[in-house]
Amino acid sequence: MGSLVETAIERSINAVINRDYGAAQEVLAAEARINSIELEIDALAIELLALHQPMASNLRFIIAALKINTDLERMGDLAANIAHSARALGETPAMEPIVDIPLLAGLAQSMVRKSLDAFVAADVDLALSVLASDDAVDSLRTACYHQLVTFMRKDSQNINSGLNLLAVTRTIERLADHSTNIAEDVLFFVKGVDVRHQLGAPSLLIT
Amino acid sequence: MGSLVETAIERSINAVINRDYGAAQEVLAAEARINSIELEIDALAIELLALHQPMASNLRFIIAALKINTDLERMGDLAANIAHSARALGETPAMEPIVDIPLLAGLAQSMVRKSLDAFVAADVDLALSVLASDDAVDSLRTACYHQLVTFMRKDSQNINSGLNLLAVTRTIERLADHSTNIAEDVLFFVKGVDVRHQLGAPSLLIT
Repeated sequence: MGSLVETAIERSINAVINRDYGAAQEVLAAEARINSIELEIDALAIELLALHQPMASNLRFIIAALKINTDLERMGDLAANIAHSARALGETPAMEPIVDIPLLAGLAQSMVRKSLDAFVAADVDLALSVLASDDAVDSLRTACYHQLVTFMRKDSQNINSGLNLLAVTRTIERLADHSTNIAEDVLFFVKGVDVRHQLGAPSLLIT
Repeated sequence: MGSLVETAIERSINAVINRDYGAAQEVLAAEARINSIELEIDALAIELLALHQPMASNLRFIIAALKINTDLERMGDLAANIAHSARALGETPAMEPIVDIPLLAGLAQSMVRKSLDAFVAADVDLALSVLASDDAVDSLRTACYHQLVTFMRKDSQNINSGLNLLAVTRTIERLADHSTNIAEDVLFFVKGVDVRHQLGAPSLLIT
């Protein structure tokens, strides 16, 4: 499922940057498969809980898998949203500034890959490196926002494509947020600590 | 937690519609409490799984609670996003059209309330009524989008507040999406069927 979602994200970004209509179509065609795998994984996880009553790190692994499954399905939806924006952008002449979108997308894609690799390898340091990238994504996205608002203010003819590009940057940021969720679930599964919201010391759930 | 999130949503919408800066502040102040309850509920659910190895509908109830917990925390974040938009809107003169936003917000708030009531009462019909509202939200949001783009095209001075109002309508739609997730989790918990993605007949997970 992770690999399907990674491919969908990569294609959707290429569809925007290279105005590749075919890539956008492929992303939309792959969505149903991602959705059906989500249901399979949920059913398997619940079956494992019901039949084997796992304890400690096995239980945490299954809870993490359930949560990561939800995140991955949403990420598939978000890739489809980017593909829709790419198609809308393809209908107007290519005069809009792509600005820092390739940079922002590259960073988010790296976070997605690292968070999935961290889950597969139970790699705490890799998961922590994903959390550390979050601020860079926010700054890049803010920079894109200001560049695109300036572009829209210049000529009202730019408003439609400006809105589509803003939607793309916002969606890329949400992809990065989901990879942060995955990294937090990896830390919970491997270390048994909940690092979300960082309320002082991490709470110890299961020791 | 549901009640805190409902209050946060109501206040954030009021902050936009009535330009109520105080309401926006209250939403932002409540976010930390919602976040900490999310951690408590997750820890309790995992403790129940570990200590009591629940089966069948008890197991489904806990899985549903874990998922609804995640949705509610995100809904608290979204209410905070609306509060931020309300503050940004408060910095410009009130000349932008609020258009169908109160209608859209009212519909989404009703979906949120029904989905939470459906969970508490294990009420299948109420959960189904939430799913049935989704199309109306999409149509209203599309209508708002076109009204706001027209407003932005009219004068480039309108672009900033237009973007803030677009963000509000998009966030309200996401709140409605989360209430749909909750309604689907209620159906899974009560009936043992997974209605997500509606791939033909619902798959029977646990009988």
